[in-house]
Amino acid sequence: MEIIRSNFKINLHKVYQAIEEADFFAIDGEFSGISDGPSVTALTSGFDTPEERYQKLKKHSMDFLLFQFGLCAFKYDHTDSKHITKSFNFYVFPKPFSRSSPDVKFVCQSSSIDFLASQGFDFNKVFCSGIPYLNQEEERQLREQFDEKRSQANGAGALAKCPVTIPEDQRKFIDQVIEKIEDFLQNKEKKSLDLEPCTGFQRKLIYQTLSWKFPKGIHVETLETEKKERHIVISKVDEEERKRREQEKYAKEQEELNDAVGFSRVIHAIANSGKLVVGHNMLLDVMHTIHQFYCPLPADLKEFKEMTTCVFPRLLDTKLMASTQPFKDIINNTSLAELEKRLKETPFDPPKVESAEGFPSYDTASEQLHEAGYDAYITGLCFISMANYLGSLLGPPKMCVSARSKLIEPFFNKLFLMRVMDIPYLNLEGPDLQPKRDHVLHVTFPKEWKTSDLYQLFSAFGNIQISWIDDTSAFVSLSQPEQVQIAVNTSKYAESYRIQTYAEYVGKKQEDKQVKRKWTEDSWKEADRKQPKVSDPCSHTNSFAATGTTGKRNLSPDPGEAGSEDRESEEMSDSELEQIDSCADPFPEGRKKAKKLKRMKKELSLAGTVAESSAMLFEVPDTW
Amino acid sequence: MEIIRSNFKINLHKVYQAIEEADFFAIDGEFSGISDGPSVTALTSGFDTPEERYQKLKKHSMDFLLFQFGLCAFKYDHTDSKHITKSFNFYVFPKPFSRSSPDVKFVCQSSSIDFLASQGFDFNKVFCSGIPYLNQEEERQLREQFDEKRSQANGAGALAKCPVTIPEDQRKFIDQVIEKIEDFLQNKEKKSLDLEPCTGFQRKLIYQTLSWKFPKGIHVETLETEKKERHIVISKVDEEERKRREQEKYAKEQEELNDAVGFSRVIHAIANSGKLVVGHNMLLDVMHTIHQFYCPLPADLKEFKEMTTCVFPRLLDTKLMASTQPFKDIINNTSLAELEKRLKETPFDPPKVESAEGFPSYDTASEQLHEAGYDAYITGLCFISMANYLGSLLGPPKMCVSARSKLIEPFFNKLFLMRVMDIPYLNLEGPDLQPKRDHVLHVTFPKEWKTSDLYQLFSAFGNIQISWIDDTSAFVSLSQPEQVQIAVNTSKYAESYRIQTYAEYVGKKQEDKQVKRKWTEDSWKEADRKQPKVSDPCSHTNSFAATGTTGKRNLSPDPGEAGSEDRESEEMSDSELEQIDSCADPFPEGRKKAKKLKRMKKELSLAGTVAESSAMLFEVPDTW
Repeated sequence: MEIIRSNFKINLHKVYQAIEEADFFAIDGEFSGISDGPSVTALTSGFDTPEERYQKLKKHSMDFLLFQFGLCAFKYDHTDSKHITKSFNFYVFPKPFSRSSPDVKFVCQSSSIDFLASQGFDFNKVFCSGIPYLNQEEERQLREQFDEKRSQANGAGALAKCPVTIPEDQRKFIDQVIEKIEDFLQNKEKKSLDLEPCTGFQRKLIYQTLSWKFPKGIHVETLETEKKERHIVISKVDEEERKRREQEKYAKEQEELNDAVGFSRVIHAIANSGKLVVGHNMLLDVMHTIHQFYCPLPADLKEFKEMTTCVFPRLLDTKLMASTQPFKDIINNTSLAELEKRLKETPFDPPKVESAEGFPSYDTASEQLHEAGYDAYITGLCFISMANYLGSLLGPPKMCVSARSKLIEPFFNKLFLMRVMDIPYLNLEGPDLQPKRDHVLHVTFPKEWKTSDLYQLFSAFGNIQISWIDDTSAFVSLSQPEQVQIAVNTSKYAESYRIQTYAEYVGKKQEDKQVKRKWTEDSWKEADRKQPKVSDPCSHTNSFAATGTTGKRNLSPDPGEAGSEDRESEEMSDSELEQIDSCADPFPEGRKKAKKLKRMKKELSLAGTVAESSAMLFEVPDTW
Repeated sequence: MEIIRSNFKINLHKVYQAIEEADFFAIDGEFSGISDGPSVTALTSGFDTPEERYQKLKKHSMDFLLFQFGLCAFKYDHTDSKHITKSFNFYVFPKPFSRSSPDVKFVCQSSSIDFLASQGFDFNKVFCSGIPYLNQEEERQLREQFDEKRSQANGAGALAKCPVTIPEDQRKFIDQVIEKIEDFLQNKEKKSLDLEPCTGFQRKLIYQTLSWKFPKGIHVETLETEKKERHIVISKVDEEERKRREQEKYAKEQEELNDAVGFSRVIHAIANSGKLVVGHNMLLDVMHTIHQFYCPLPADLKEFKEMTTCVFPRLLDTKLMASTQPFKDIINNTSLAELEKRLKETPFDPPKVESAEGFPSYDTASEQLHEAGYDAYITGLCFISMANYLGSLLGPPKMCVSARSKLIEPFFNKLFLMRVMDIPYLNLEGPDLQPKRDHVLHVTFPKEWKTSDLYQLFSAFGNIQISWIDDTSAFVSLSQPEQVQIAVNTSKYAESYRIQTYAEYVGKKQEDKQVKRKWTEDSWKEADRKQPKVSDPCSHTNSFAATGTTGKRNLSPDPGEAGSEDRESEEMSDSELEQIDSCADPFPEGRKKAKKLKRMKKELSLAGTVAESSAMLFEVPDTW
């Protein structure tokens, strides 16, 4: 169901009802851009730490606009053993609510806009008919403005225990107003009196004077003429009528406030339900949703995690799920479109799904990819298929796995980390994996170097993976950690390039950071004590120009692609996995099936020393 | 004529022809936003210096996108005494030309987008069908890329006087390639050979090896498969065929380059014509046009003036013209729509205009305002009406004034300065007016203050004009310079606010600037000597939040509106003007008419001590 500004209010109860009934939701967002940095590849370096990745996305992605939001509510019908869906496609736009409301500026990225345009995206619908919204701070401010206006009207009465001081030059003007009103009050036929337009200051004087001179029996309000001039209208009312009018005005203000909060009300309802929210590669969707409809994102990752689990207590990322065992082995491509297709084939079973009455149904045969409502819908389908597959591995098999099943709990609150080589997900519920990276080198070189030069430099070391940092540096991971010291040693006398180990690099970065802090902050010791391990994840992205970099990279094969191919061959064997598995096996029956489930749980709970090996189970494909 | 990506190329010759034939052009641009600062009012302070205004617009407006460009070419048909118009409405969008081309990010301002949406603007046409463009630097880079690719292909041959060094691990691969090619060359039936896809580095090795091994008889090129994999194709050719292919490729590259330069070619043609370009309130149009299609704007105003007169040697702003005598007295509202209407009535004479064959005509009765092509069209009409009116004042009257007439020369290269109280225009051809501002006060106050508080504070001084700087300061101009010292004196003991003269304010700002420079720059003495008078015009806009400010101002009447009303009454009389007029009178006949023309010339050439009085002749309305 398409929801725009004009049909938002009359359909809001349907949205609320769908949220209330649902077992779980799937969501998806479309944005005006992905990254305002030099290039997506450079901003998603393969060896980002989760903190670095968060800082990069926060810095380089939050100025874009989330302008289409897809919500698909899934409810299981036990009688007919099918899922009933209610799918909504919301167009969202920060139309200024009034002259005094925020005038949001947002960034558009040509490539993203061009991509959406090629997919038939309707920009006119966003800009002409998008539903407005306010974040919590803006809502608070608007509420305060209304309260202030009201208390000004009431308060003027309360204040006016004594006559107001009228400036000399305004006295004649105010006297004339009073005279007019006295005439008006004696004229029994006239119900209301329009004063001449005047300045805001004069209106304030009139309000104050009248509430003192005529505390009862008249109602004073400011209206705008067609020419946008403000003038005061005075009408005769008894106390009851006055109260009625005030209540009417209050109700109208409340409605205006609700209209202004607009689409944020939908997000609040989803959040307040506490139900499972499923998304595909959903980190950016979650960040944008919180940033746009709640509040600016917090300064560090830890706070972001706290905020996110507070807003959305249960999130599940289908891209992470599909990249994890037991799915990893049988799913080659985890991009949403390919995943959806794959999950229609054996060993998967496409779920029985029907759209609720009054809701148009999507046809997955004729793809409508990149319409947020459709993407949310098929994300939900993917989740159901994968969850049911987990059920099928049980003995006896469970045909339908609910959104509350313990089987899917291991996937909760772990968001897929795009293109990070050895950390598959952001763990919202605790510390992140810390792979050792002892097979990784940090290389600096002249800015003329291309990917091929790096391949050539390391040609003696077999398969390598390159992960660009900026124009003059990259991480290079070797297939054998033993090769690392050889590479460092052979580079000792090189003039044009420099190689150091990952550990050396991190150490120097921390040092530089500390020195920098020493010089730039007055109370650097203080600051240092407070945040001993915070590094500056984006400082290295500032030094190069967009055009040059992009051009240069594209002359060579995509390092990301090459990387993921290599990784395939480095995967750990089943037996290796078994050795490090020390958890109790919760599935006593069906040896092979149970093993798969065990591996899945293992992967998602491994940390510390075995994290690196664990991470290798994940495929990190290049598609979004 | 609507021009989008798909019909740009086939219509470009029509555009060129129109430019070549025209007597003059009118232009107009539509943007994705006006100002990314806190509010337009704050960014266009009434007492900005031209340098400050330039810096503000440069800083706060250039990230928006000019996405619709209107061009209307006017050519006078002497036989039928009518103007023939060719009007073009270009949709412009920086669609990335290839993977290696710049991925432009631009800002949208919700209020501007919402305004255009309400005018029926078609955003889909911009984003889906906009004509691409490159600025000069991007064009140069792309040209270089093509040249480099070509010289790589040719140069490889030149370099390959000796065999290439093949890295150990690539030797087997290259040997296999050579073997394949030798087989291929001996096979008389096969015309071409597709090699397997390989890395960029491997392709480079193949190119180099082949140009040494097989300097003649084969043509080597890289193609992309459907899967976007790059592979090398080898074909047998004789020398003639090889040259033909290379020329073909070169021609294709030139075409691609031209396509990428796209809409910029239209701007280049306008610029190269050196003809008169008319616009309405055109400063932002000119800045955006140069910024988007030539190069980023220079650091200071002086350089901008040089650049602008170099690109567009003759500009004329109809808003400035309409705000200047003899028009000022008979034109109340200089907004484009109102001006167009006014110029249809006496004493003006709407020009006889017809659209050229094959060009759709606009109907000014059914307004299509804010479509750039239409706005350019009526801007041109306004110019003709006003120019002809100047001719009618001559004795004998001249009914049709050409774009080359001396009568309009006084208006050349003076761009209207929006909402500056005492400097009507930016003078592109020399130094700007420097009004004394000895009736202006600089006031600082608590951030709770509103316009009404300022009116109250100065209530003893009669009419005042308020010009906000930021949340806690404003310029207040009094009607009498004598009042200035009184106001400063009475404020000496005030605690909540502070009043200083304009001169004091400017002096302190310069001082602060110097101290700041002393602390922040290593070689401050150097820098200081180089730019002794550059001030920091935007530093004061950083301290307040958008929402609060906008809200606050809007509770009070618009200071701009109030200002322009006040100003009306302060205008100088004709006789006062006569006294300061010492120029030779170029129009001996028709006393009254000549006087009007004289006043016009006077106004536009006054400078130095009389600038302040001169400036008062201009009305500075609030409408764009």
